[in-house]
Amino acid sequence: MSAEILCVGTELLLGDILNSNARWLALELAALGVPHHRQEVVGDNRERLMAAVREASNRCRVLITTGGLGPTADDLTTEAIAAAFGAPLVEHPEVWADIQAKLGARGRPVAPSNRRQALLPKGAAVLPNPTGTAPGMIWSPQPGFTILTFPGVPMELRAMWQATAIPWLRQAGLAEGVFLSRRLHVWGIGESLLAERVADLLDLANPTVAPYAGGGQVTLRLTARAGDAAAADALLDPVERDIRSRIGSACFGRDGDSLASVVVRALAERGQTLAVAESCTGGGLGAALAAVPGASDCWLGGVMAYANAVKRALLDVPEELLARWGAVSDPVAVAMAEGVRTRLGSDWAVATTGIAGPGGATAEKPVGLVHVAVVGPEPFPCWSEGVRFGASRGREAIQALSVGEALNRLRLSLLQSPA
Amino acid sequence: MSAEILCVGTELLLGDILNSNARWLALELAALGVPHHRQEVVGDNRERLMAAVREASNRCRVLITTGGLGPTADDLTTEAIAAAFGAPLVEHPEVWADIQAKLGARGRPVAPSNRRQALLPKGAAVLPNPTGTAPGMIWSPQPGFTILTFPGVPMELRAMWQATAIPWLRQAGLAEGVFLSRRLHVWGIGESLLAERVADLLDLANPTVAPYAGGGQVTLRLTARAGDAAAADALLDPVERDIRSRIGSACFGRDGDSLASVVVRALAERGQTLAVAESCTGGGLGAALAAVPGASDCWLGGVMAYANAVKRALLDVPEELLARWGAVSDPVAVAMAEGVRTRLGSDWAVATTGIAGPGGATAEKPVGLVHVAVVGPEPFPCWSEGVRFGASRGREAIQALSVGEALNRLRLSLLQSPA
Repeated sequence: MSAEILCVGTELLLGDILNSNARWLALELAALGVPHHRQEVVGDNRERLMAAVREASNRCRVLITTGGLGPTADDLTTEAIAAAFGAPLVEHPEVWADIQAKLGARGRPVAPSNRRQALLPKGAAVLPNPTGTAPGMIWSPQPGFTILTFPGVPMELRAMWQATAIPWLRQAGLAEGVFLSRRLHVWGIGESLLAERVADLLDLANPTVAPYAGGGQVTLRLTARAGDAAAADALLDPVERDIRSRIGSACFGRDGDSLASVVVRALAERGQTLAVAESCTGGGLGAALAAVPGASDCWLGGVMAYANAVKRALLDVPEELLARWGAVSDPVAVAMAEGVRTRLGSDWAVATTGIAGPGGATAEKPVGLVHVAVVGPEPFPCWSEGVRFGASRGREAIQALSVGEALNRLRLSLLQSPA
Repeated sequence: MSAEILCVGTELLLGDILNSNARWLALELAALGVPHHRQEVVGDNRERLMAAVREASNRCRVLITTGGLGPTADDLTTEAIAAAFGAPLVEHPEVWADIQAKLGARGRPVAPSNRRQALLPKGAAVLPNPTGTAPGMIWSPQPGFTILTFPGVPMELRAMWQATAIPWLRQAGLAEGVFLSRRLHVWGIGESLLAERVADLLDLANPTVAPYAGGGQVTLRLTARAGDAAAADALLDPVERDIRSRIGSACFGRDGDSLASVVVRALAERGQTLAVAESCTGGGLGAALAAVPGASDCWLGGVMAYANAVKRALLDVPEELLARWGAVSDPVAVAMAEGVRTRLGSDWAVATTGIAGPGGATAEKPVGLVHVAVVGPEPFPCWSEGVRFGASRGREAIQALSVGEALNRLRLSLLQSPA
C-alpha cells in the first residue's frame, strides 16, 4: 500500500533548484499515514521517464509525479507515462477550453503547443488545476497501480494536492483512518532550545511531535492517528495544551497562521489601525501585511524610508537624532514609528532600521544589527530595542528575520495592552 | 559513463529535511562534466537499500551515496552495499585507530558501535573523512561499476568530495572536459510562446537549450560540453547572441541577475534615483529593491499607500481623481508616481495600484487587474497601463507578478530613455 514520488526535470539533475516538492509531498504523505519508501528524480528524457515509471509500477501502489506537464517539447511526463503502458493519448475538450479561457483572461495568446496539455492517456481522469493551465491526471494503467501527476510549480501542486489528491487517497482506502496534524508556530525560541523544553513529548508515539525550523520560526508538528477526527482531536488537545503551557506567548499561532495574519486579526478585532516605517527591510513588513487577505481592515500603509532624506522628509525624524545616534539606533527607530503614526493617524506603528549588509557596518554596529520600535495608544509605553541576527546569515535572511521580529513585537505589544 | 546519486535516510522520506546534498552533488557533477541521469532516495532499510544499489549497478558507471555511515543501528549503507554484492566486511585497523583518536580529541567516549564504522566490504578503499568519524569508501564490486559513499552531514560530504572524489573521478576518466551553463532570464513572453520562438534551438545537442518557468519569469538554460571553459564559452556565445536577437529586450539578464538587480545597476550607472508608491503590492516592490546589495546607491524609498487616505496625505493624489476613476486606474497610478517623485525628489518613480483579491472586485475591475505607472525625467513620457493577471492565480501570486511587471516596465523605460 505504499507510495513513491517521482520528480521530473533536468533542472533538478543539473542542481539548478532544490527539490522542495519532494519534501512537501513527503510531509503530506506522512501526515496522511501513507507509507512512502522511495523518491526518484529523472530528467526530461522520454526513455528514462518510461523506465522509472515501469519500475515503480512493480514496487508501489501509488506513484506521484511532479513536473513535465508544461506546453513545451521537453515536457514529456504525460506522453511517457502513456507510452510506458502502451496507451493512446486522448484530447479532453473541456481541458482545452479551460486552457484557452485562462490564457485569454491573462491577455496571453494561445499557442498551438498549449493544446498538448489537453491530452491524457485513454482512461485517465483529469486532476483539475485551479490556478495554472497544466492539469494533472489520475490513472490506473494496471490493477493495483495508480499514477497521480502534478505540475512542478509548487503553488499549483499544493492547491491541486489539497483539492483532489487527498480526497482521492482517502476514498481509495490508502489513507486509512484519520491522520490529523496540527502545527504550532513559535517565534523567539530556537529549535534546539524548544526541543529541550518538549524533549519528553518528542518520544510520544501517538500523537507524534516533531520540530522543524525555517526563516526564524520554529514549528512543532503534532500528528495523531485515530479512527475518526474526533478521536484524533481528543489525542491532540491535551498535548497542545501541555506545549502551550510550557512555551507561553512564544507560540503565536496554529496551522495556516502567520505572524502577519495574527497581527491583522488582533488589530481588526480591536478596531485599531497600523502604519509602518521601514528602512533596512525596504518594504518587506508592508508586503507581509499586504499578503494577508483583508489587511485593509487595519493596515493603512507606511513609508519606506531607505535614505535618511526620506526619514526626515516623510517621517519628520529630526536631523539632530540622525547626527547624534546614527540611523541604526533606538532614538531614530522610535522617531520613525512616531512619525508615521502621526502622519497616517494610526493607532499603532512599527519601525525597522538596521544594517542588512554586506556593506554599512561599523565597529559598534555590525551587519545584522537591527533596531525595531513599536508605538501604540496610551497607556502603551513605546518599546524599542536592538537585535543582532549575525552577519553570517546574509542580507535576505536578515531582512526576513527583521520583518518577523517587528511583527512579533507588535503581536506581544497587543497581547500586553488592553483592547 | 553516467553517475547516479542515492541519498539514504528516513528523515528525507518523512520530509523532515530538504535534500540539499542531492542538489549540491548535482551541481558538482554538472561542473565536472559527469552526466547524471537519476537521483534516488531510500530510507534506513536494508532490503530497499540493497535493491536500489543493485538496480543502479545495471544502469550507471558510478553510484554516489550519501548518509547511513554513522555508528547507530539504523546506519546501514556500508553493510547493505556489501550484502548486495555478497562481499564480506573487513575491519580497517587504521580507520579504527583514526576514529578512536578523533573521539579522544573531542573528549568523547568510544562506544563499541563506533567500531562498525571501521568495517568496509572486502576490496574497498577508504575515502578518508578529515572532519568527522565516518569514513566513506570507493569500491568497484563489479567491472565498470564503482560506488563512492559519503556521510549525510553536508560539511563532511563536501570536504571529502573535494579532497578525494574529484581527483578520483578525473583519474578514472569520468570527469572529462567541463559542462558550462548560462541562464538567460525573460520577462513578458510566456513559456510556450518563448519555446516556439526558439523551437529549433531546443533541439540542439551541444549546447543544449531548455526553458523553465516560475513566478512570471521564464529562464532559458544553455549548457555546453567542451574540453575546457574557453571552448565551452565559444559554443555558448553564438547561441546566446542568436536567442537575444530573437527575443530582444524581453531578455532582462543572465545567471544571478534579477529584475530588481538589473534596475538597480542601470540606475546606479546613470547616477539616477528611484522612488516607489505601492498600493496593492504593499511593500513588495520596495522589498525586492532592498534585497539587492547596494540598492541605497539609487533607491531612496517610497510610500505604501494601501489606504486611499494615505494616497491623499503622503502622495497628494487629488480626491477628484479617486472619486472619478477609482483607486485602480491609470490617472491614480500616475498621480501616485508623480506624488512620490515630487515628495522624494527622485529622477524616476514607479507606482502600483490593483485588486489582489479575493475581495474588492467590481464588474469592470476584476481581481488580478493592476495598473502600473512609470514616470521619469524629461523627455521620458509618463507610461501607465493596466495589466490583467487573472483572478485564478491567487493573492500572493498577483502581488508578486505586479512587482515583476513594475520592475520590468521601469527597466524598459530606462532602456528607451537617454542616459
